[in-house]
Amino acid sequence: MSYKAPVRDLSFVLHDVLKVENYGNQLPDADLSRDLIDQIVEEGGKFAEEVIAPINRPGDLEGCHIQGDVVTTPKGWKEAYHQMVEAGWPSLGFSTEFGGQGMPSVVSSAVGQFTAAASAAFSMYPGLTSGAFHGIEASASDEIKQKYLPKMASGEWTGTMNLTEPQCGTDLGMVRTKAVPNGDGSYSITGQKIWISAGEHDFADNIIHTVLARVEGAVPGIKGLSLFVVPKFLVNEDGSLGERNGVSCAGLEHKMGIHGNATCVMAYENAKGWLIGEEGRGMNNMFVVMNEARLGTGLQGLAIGDAAYQAAVEFANDRLQGRSLTGPKNPDGPADPIMVHPDVRRMLLEAKAFVEGGRAFILWTALQADLQKAADEAVATKAKDYMGLITPVLKAYLTDKGFHVASLAMQVHGGSGYTEHFPASQYLRDARITMIYEGTNGIQALDLVGRKLPANGGRAIMSWFADIDAFVSENGDDEAIKPFVEGLADAKKKLQEATMWLMQNGMANPDNAAAASTDYLHIFGLTAYAFLWAQMAKAAQEKIAAGDADPYYANKLMTGRYFVERILPDAGAHLKKLKSGAEVLMQMPAEAF
Amino acid sequence: MSYKAPVRDLSFVLHDVLKVENYGNQLPDADLSRDLIDQIVEEGGKFAEEVIAPINRPGDLEGCHIQGDVVTTPKGWKEAYHQMVEAGWPSLGFSTEFGGQGMPSVVSSAVGQFTAAASAAFSMYPGLTSGAFHGIEASASDEIKQKYLPKMASGEWTGTMNLTEPQCGTDLGMVRTKAVPNGDGSYSITGQKIWISAGEHDFADNIIHTVLARVEGAVPGIKGLSLFVVPKFLVNEDGSLGERNGVSCAGLEHKMGIHGNATCVMAYENAKGWLIGEEGRGMNNMFVVMNEARLGTGLQGLAIGDAAYQAAVEFANDRLQGRSLTGPKNPDGPADPIMVHPDVRRMLLEAKAFVEGGRAFILWTALQADLQKAADEAVATKAKDYMGLITPVLKAYLTDKGFHVASLAMQVHGGSGYTEHFPASQYLRDARITMIYEGTNGIQALDLVGRKLPANGGRAIMSWFADIDAFVSENGDDEAIKPFVEGLADAKKKLQEATMWLMQNGMANPDNAAAASTDYLHIFGLTAYAFLWAQMAKAAQEKIAAGDADPYYANKLMTGRYFVERILPDAGAHLKKLKSGAEVLMQMPAEAF
Repeated sequence: MSYKAPVRDLSFVLHDVLKVENYGNQLPDADLSRDLIDQIVEEGGKFAEEVIAPINRPGDLEGCHIQGDVVTTPKGWKEAYHQMVEAGWPSLGFSTEFGGQGMPSVVSSAVGQFTAAASAAFSMYPGLTSGAFHGIEASASDEIKQKYLPKMASGEWTGTMNLTEPQCGTDLGMVRTKAVPNGDGSYSITGQKIWISAGEHDFADNIIHTVLARVEGAVPGIKGLSLFVVPKFLVNEDGSLGERNGVSCAGLEHKMGIHGNATCVMAYENAKGWLIGEEGRGMNNMFVVMNEARLGTGLQGLAIGDAAYQAAVEFANDRLQGRSLTGPKNPDGPADPIMVHPDVRRMLLEAKAFVEGGRAFILWTALQADLQKAADEAVATKAKDYMGLITPVLKAYLTDKGFHVASLAMQVHGGSGYTEHFPASQYLRDARITMIYEGTNGIQALDLVGRKLPANGGRAIMSWFADIDAFVSENGDDEAIKPFVEGLADAKKKLQEATMWLMQNGMANPDNAAAASTDYLHIFGLTAYAFLWAQMAKAAQEKIAAGDADPYYANKLMTGRYFVERILPDAGAHLKKLKSGAEVLMQMPAEAF
Repeated sequence: MSYKAPVRDLSFVLHDVLKVENYGNQLPDADLSRDLIDQIVEEGGKFAEEVIAPINRPGDLEGCHIQGDVVTTPKGWKEAYHQMVEAGWPSLGFSTEFGGQGMPSVVSSAVGQFTAAASAAFSMYPGLTSGAFHGIEASASDEIKQKYLPKMASGEWTGTMNLTEPQCGTDLGMVRTKAVPNGDGSYSITGQKIWISAGEHDFADNIIHTVLARVEGAVPGIKGLSLFVVPKFLVNEDGSLGERNGVSCAGLEHKMGIHGNATCVMAYENAKGWLIGEEGRGMNNMFVVMNEARLGTGLQGLAIGDAAYQAAVEFANDRLQGRSLTGPKNPDGPADPIMVHPDVRRMLLEAKAFVEGGRAFILWTALQADLQKAADEAVATKAKDYMGLITPVLKAYLTDKGFHVASLAMQVHGGSGYTEHFPASQYLRDARITMIYEGTNGIQALDLVGRKLPANGGRAIMSWFADIDAFVSENGDDEAIKPFVEGLADAKKKLQEATMWLMQNGMANPDNAAAASTDYLHIFGLTAYAFLWAQMAKAAQEKIAAGDADPYYANKLMTGRYFVERILPDAGAHLKKLKSGAEVLMQMPAEAF
């Protein structure tokens, strides 16, 4: 089994569906020629296939090691990372101001899908660097930026995000890690952080931690938190490494999956740190990078699903077992490949429809992330609205479905999939964390209904509904894509009905909104998929109508049809469940569970 | 975290819902007094809690070991098994003729739920013995029965089932293991079997393998297979152990879960075996025990879900994070327990509704297993019909949902659940295999639509529909349980519609039946649950009406209401998907996946 980067499919979405070149004038820092994009995507795919994919499985089996506070990654991982740095991949999406290549998110997200599919655990090392980089870039002083960002952009140094403590994950208002001013502009940071991905390892000379802590005497709760940069090694004026800081890894988590990632308990003992932005603005500064991190987590869930799907397809073509119900398809062999069986195809098409829909969903969202910085204010505002609204949907829906796809892929393998001789188990185990970290999917659903939906009087969703309506009325008469347009219109109607229900019932009783949140998010995810599948169907149909004989387009339509006929009906069930309200959830006494 | 056997809930189902005492005269070998049943269930629960549950987690972390061909189970497992044998638990359900206690399946399934919840991996050792016992009991000669069954009933010896080989799992017609007659009534068995649960271990003096093999010169395919008994140690005339037979463990599988169970590659090299039943009837003889084994697997999926649910409830009550949306519920603490959050309650109630419904489903089905042997022929025939029809539904639906529940339980834990400090990961990993072994859930769905449904002109499902209709018309006017009766009637209508669709479309094209099979099975599972939830609601409501103030009954109704309002709506989505037919699955070329 070897992972193949879906370059052809990415190219279709970027050029034929999203038509990213059209946005060139709205995207800073990028010469968005089709050739350049294709070259990057192709080379990124090759790198993921040839350098990253081969270390994924052995890394899962070996895991990370700790001796004292020294953490060693699995055999070959350090070397792969160094190759990555030499080839310049970590810098792809960072701004040119700090040595990055300034590629827009829509391009780096394309390559990011390959990296994460090839090895989710490996992709977290550059992934966390990116989170820390953008946190510093958004709010820190120029001095701090100049000190840390260029080496983080190149990948010579890596970064981390330190939020969680033993007593708090979701509820960060309970953070206890404290910061005491040293009088020279620096602070002494003391406390324990847990579940710190890439917290310590052997990839880089220095690790730049971004850390939420409470300045001594600050108010309790969220508003008393500040964000600090805490390097593993202090950095001298000339940029050389100074003495070791008071931060170390106190242990590695024993986890169900992503074994190749060092998930660390970090001990801060009078570690020297510097404020990022203002005191008391720690959470606000963190929120700036939250959307990016959540987009990255959704991408990761989807990417693992893609890799799992590919492994299942390979197995289904190789494994001979039973005969087709309509007569032998491999009459000279002892049995037919299991690919002939309708229920096996059902599982594979379900996976394929989710993966290809998700791929488009990610790239569309990444494009919104880019357009937030557009020169045209109307374009930027709309993109910001969409980015806020869609991010929790994308994170939760893609990770739920990524795990679902990984489970389907295991099922296609039968007993083989449950053994560690095949990669299905790793994909299932790795995918499961994406539903939890960067805010559990339940928290995403609350964020959606409680914050994102009502923001600006519901401006974002009304605008998105208008986009859907415009698409439906423009394409409603096109017989060739009728099922897609009808499916989209029906899904949108259900989402609208759910939104109305929330407005009517959520205000009166906030428990109603929370009780409805997960079903609401799923209707939203299905509608977003329906919109993207309709756009993909339209683009494919146009190619066919223009005489393009590549079977890719007909296959795209078939996969989309699976989505409309066999996945989209879930929207109706979610709507019914949502309307049952909070009472059935809230009346049970805690002790009766 | 410690597992608590749900004795109270079992007792409600057995006595108030199924009223098993009423069947006393139809059940052989059992004095079914309520006192006796209660005593067995209570003691079984205690044993599971005190002896089995404590070894489950360490056993997962340690796993089994192999040196040469000697397999060692995790620390403490052998001792726990010996305690089990001393206490007489393995013999509970075996016939008195061979030293068993002759308890009906409905009672042994109650206790079996506790054992499997306390440790799924551990429960497989007696579970496989039971399968092998019943295979021998059903078809072997008296001599073989007398030689092996008494010591298997007591648990002194254990048993296994050897079907799978590297080239075949589902498609057993490809079995290559061969049997050569020795001329003295015995055969020389040679071949390799894989994924043999409890194939080798340190629990017992002897292991009695039942083995599918092909007698030299027999026809290819299924009809050339015969079933053999192959003891690890030959047994002398006087019952003492003789020389070591030519069967040994050639390796242990490295699996995602059930680490405490030794899943073995078994090498047969001229091992001495004896026919069970006639030559060429191997698969028929295996099918006799298939229903039992599938019931056991469904039970295991459900039981793991129960244990996972309990762990999630404990976590939700302990973990303080965030505040209730309607004002603090734990104002003196730093935060409220997460049990106050609607979305956490949604996950827990979904788990609870599945677990409690599944518990009733298992016991109802076990009762049918018992009634197959009823003296009254009409009773026996109906029970056989139901057992045939329901078994694939129960196996697939409960294991799909057991895994779903284990995943919900992990989600309630947040990041903690992904670490191996909490039991959530083990439950998720252990539950996943139940969807695969004893026939994958896709195979169950095919068995349902292709074999069980049309058997005897659809007699079984027509009879079951009539039972539902009778219940609906009897209880349709009862305002107190109206939502349950209406939900049931609606689910049955959908199942009927799906059945009609299958009849109309499956005959014309068998791919349509196979394409519909999984969605059909799920509508069936939902309808079976709806029927049992309606019966439980009725029983609970009767208690309340009679003035019983135990809050257990009101809570039961609330949980059932969750099922009707928040789970049952899936039936409509499955019906829509099913009706889309095979075309969307079959048209995609294999190379386009």
